[in-house]
Amino acid sequence: MAVPVWGDIVSLAGGLAAGNFSATDLTRAYQTRIERYNPDLNAFTNVCRDVALAEAAASDARREAGKTIGPLDGIPVAAKDNIAIAGLPWTAGMEVRRKIIATEDAFCIGRLRSAGAVLLGTLNMEEAALGATTDNPHFGKTHNPHRHGYSPAGSSGGSGAAVAAALCAGALGTDTLGSVRLPATYCGVVGLKPAFGRISTRGVVPLSTRFDHVGPLTRSVRDNALMLEAMAAGDPKAEGSTETAPGTEFDPGDDPSIANVKIAILGNHCGVTVTEDVSALFDNAAAILGQCGAKISTVELEDLDLTVARRAGLTLVVVEGAEIFREQMKTGEGLSSQLLMLLNFGKNATAEKQAESERRIKTLRDSFASLFENHDTVLTPTSPQAAFSFAEKGPENQADFTGIANMIGASALSVPAGFSSEGLPVGLQVMTPNGGEALAFQIARAFERVANLDMRPRVMIED
Amino acid sequence: MAVPVWGDIVSLAGGLAAGNFSATDLTRAYQTRIERYNPDLNAFTNVCRDVALAEAAASDARREAGKTIGPLDGIPVAAKDNIAIAGLPWTAGMEVRRKIIATEDAFCIGRLRSAGAVLLGTLNMEEAALGATTDNPHFGKTHNPHRHGYSPAGSSGGSGAAVAAALCAGALGTDTLGSVRLPATYCGVVGLKPAFGRISTRGVVPLSTRFDHVGPLTRSVRDNALMLEAMAAGDPKAEGSTETAPGTEFDPGDDPSIANVKIAILGNHCGVTVTEDVSALFDNAAAILGQCGAKISTVELEDLDLTVARRAGLTLVVVEGAEIFREQMKTGEGLSSQLLMLLNFGKNATAEKQAESERRIKTLRDSFASLFENHDTVLTPTSPQAAFSFAEKGPENQADFTGIANMIGASALSVPAGFSSEGLPVGLQVMTPNGGEALAFQIARAFERVANLDMRPRVMIED
Repeated sequence: MAVPVWGDIVSLAGGLAAGNFSATDLTRAYQTRIERYNPDLNAFTNVCRDVALAEAAASDARREAGKTIGPLDGIPVAAKDNIAIAGLPWTAGMEVRRKIIATEDAFCIGRLRSAGAVLLGTLNMEEAALGATTDNPHFGKTHNPHRHGYSPAGSSGGSGAAVAAALCAGALGTDTLGSVRLPATYCGVVGLKPAFGRISTRGVVPLSTRFDHVGPLTRSVRDNALMLEAMAAGDPKAEGSTETAPGTEFDPGDDPSIANVKIAILGNHCGVTVTEDVSALFDNAAAILGQCGAKISTVELEDLDLTVARRAGLTLVVVEGAEIFREQMKTGEGLSSQLLMLLNFGKNATAEKQAESERRIKTLRDSFASLFENHDTVLTPTSPQAAFSFAEKGPENQADFTGIANMIGASALSVPAGFSSEGLPVGLQVMTPNGGEALAFQIARAFERVANLDMRPRVMIED
Repeated sequence: MAVPVWGDIVSLAGGLAAGNFSATDLTRAYQTRIERYNPDLNAFTNVCRDVALAEAAASDARREAGKTIGPLDGIPVAAKDNIAIAGLPWTAGMEVRRKIIATEDAFCIGRLRSAGAVLLGTLNMEEAALGATTDNPHFGKTHNPHRHGYSPAGSSGGSGAAVAAALCAGALGTDTLGSVRLPATYCGVVGLKPAFGRISTRGVVPLSTRFDHVGPLTRSVRDNALMLEAMAAGDPKAEGSTETAPGTEFDPGDDPSIANVKIAILGNHCGVTVTEDVSALFDNAAAILGQCGAKISTVELEDLDLTVARRAGLTLVVVEGAEIFREQMKTGEGLSSQLLMLLNFGKNATAEKQAESERRIKTLRDSFASLFENHDTVLTPTSPQAAFSFAEKGPENQADFTGIANMIGASALSVPAGFSSEGLPVGLQVMTPNGGEALAFQIARAFERVANLDMRPRVMIED
């Protein structure tokens, strides 16, 4: 039997359990795809060959001995280049870190290993995770599997592209103002920014300790829940960590019911200009959820400017970024002029500017807190448009919807909503109050099931 | 019997209990002194007459009925103008707040009232509590009771002067980088910056929520402990408040023993230039504590620059101050040019400058944390010099020793150490790890008892 590389993790785990193929077969299959497609996509920056095959063999041996660990055992995954995998370069997309080799696994990587996952390598990203294009000046562009020459978004562009192109079964990204969800929407996969603190960020190169999150990118909603659960329990070494992670219990086998779930959508997309395609696909998705029994109401958030709020978040991110990369900024050597410009903006931000940003974030938080008093979830497009060509400058407003969750402390899941008239993926964002991943999964799963979309890149579907 | 206005609270309470005089007598006696001396000193900005007498009468009635509340019952006190006393102006020394009348008592005032204290009025201060001279552009200079034309220090200059001149039995000040302890040292009284969070700052006009503290100024160490205990228990309405205040139990009747207490003094005053008088009085005080059985060792804090650290603290204070007084800064109307200059410095402080300040504070905190591992307390002069003339500019380094405690989160008590060769008071600062007020009281009480100083202003001693 040919290995079903496009399958989601749950189906692959089923195939492994049934003995249709081994973890070694699966790992080889993805390695072969990486060899074939990565030169063109540039999603992977480092590929594990023998080590990954040894991990796969160990998984196969466990299975043979009847000691399989769980649904991730033998599943090949990969991680963004700012997440430490012991023995591999840990660059955060920065020239100045090119020669740094991680000596220890990040917490989340350790968790995936404990669950039996096979680590296939590291994935390309925006330099220092600051930006959303994945046109990395030191490690090159990552192309969108749906269209060469188009951005997979960022900063976890390699993660989005690798999952969308079936170069791995699932991937990790990081999300500060949308860096998991934007690649998810542009590449047509599922991406999660979990609750703040849900997944320890120990072993992740920081950008903003306040807004940074680790999140999974997967080909299905149930996969995303599975990966979250593997990583979600408390990190005993992290500050403010708890032993258990409540509220993530989502059984992928459930028949999700969303009857009477109260969904808010934002009137006129709260002033953000969205393309016609995005608007139509969003309305369609809302209609589907309505048919599933959800109670949908349109809410007008008067006077709330999401662009202004997102800029406020960015200001605070670069203020902290400038402190984090202070040493590197002293000479500026090895930093791109674009990154240096952004970090200098942070370094020189006045107290007044920062205080104004805090006030704007507070306004945003207050608005959504009121909204969540009467609604279980808020639905928005994940981004106002589909992927753009590298020849264009990325649209300034692309993180207007995703930035909200990081600033207000909500969970937010992006699930594919279909293709634009140009054949590029578009995503739907489901936001729930912090800690509410289970409900977000439930809603997204209901949509996924009814919409039943095939999001594979048309150019790859022959495989 | 004449009312012994110079007595400390404990002795006054004894006189009240013995029936030597009534609370009404005591209140009238201080009111008479206020009438006589305040035109010259300008310590009080508002004086309660009939209301205070009514409170005193109520206390006398309680006493007659055998229902006295405790040692503060019937004791006349006053509070700095940034602490809300219901029905009185609540100016924070600011022109723009001149007409604001407090509608509710500050938490600490409520506590003093509950303990039976009589509120005599409000006390002059630095404009917005930012500075240490009490040369208020809107409410006038407060003179040092020891020498007219000399500053009582600040920002709680009115509090220091009122207690030193026996215009009240005790007073409240606030301390952000030394604003209780500097008036204490310049005026020859006892002043405390308690542990962070020990006394709720609810109802105090904020300057720096991170460094602000309410603290008592008194004529004896035992009085200070008494006032602290009255105010120290948790404020149920304040953030992070606890129900009880551990570690303040200091029985004024104790015979304080300090045998084997490990005291550190800073070699060469850690590089701060102190006057010969201050140096000699400090050495004398240390010698006395040594005779009392304390183990004194000199510690060199290499590379620590207290001036640089204090400036870092000031930067963070004005950064927050600029946000707090943002509305008032918009026109600048009613703000002195000096205050506006300081607040603009905060408003325009870059993220780089703030981060550098945070690092400097962290260095300070780490140095003292190591020091407290091997020592129970650190002894310093309270300020590097005695009071200065209003004709001079205040010395820049005056808060170099006091700022430490606010930045590292220590308790710090200033106790009079004697007079300079010019006849001006000089103070000794006892710092203990946060929460260690009881030990600071014990050490200061031992010194006070052995040194047995008469700190009454020589010009007033006829009374």
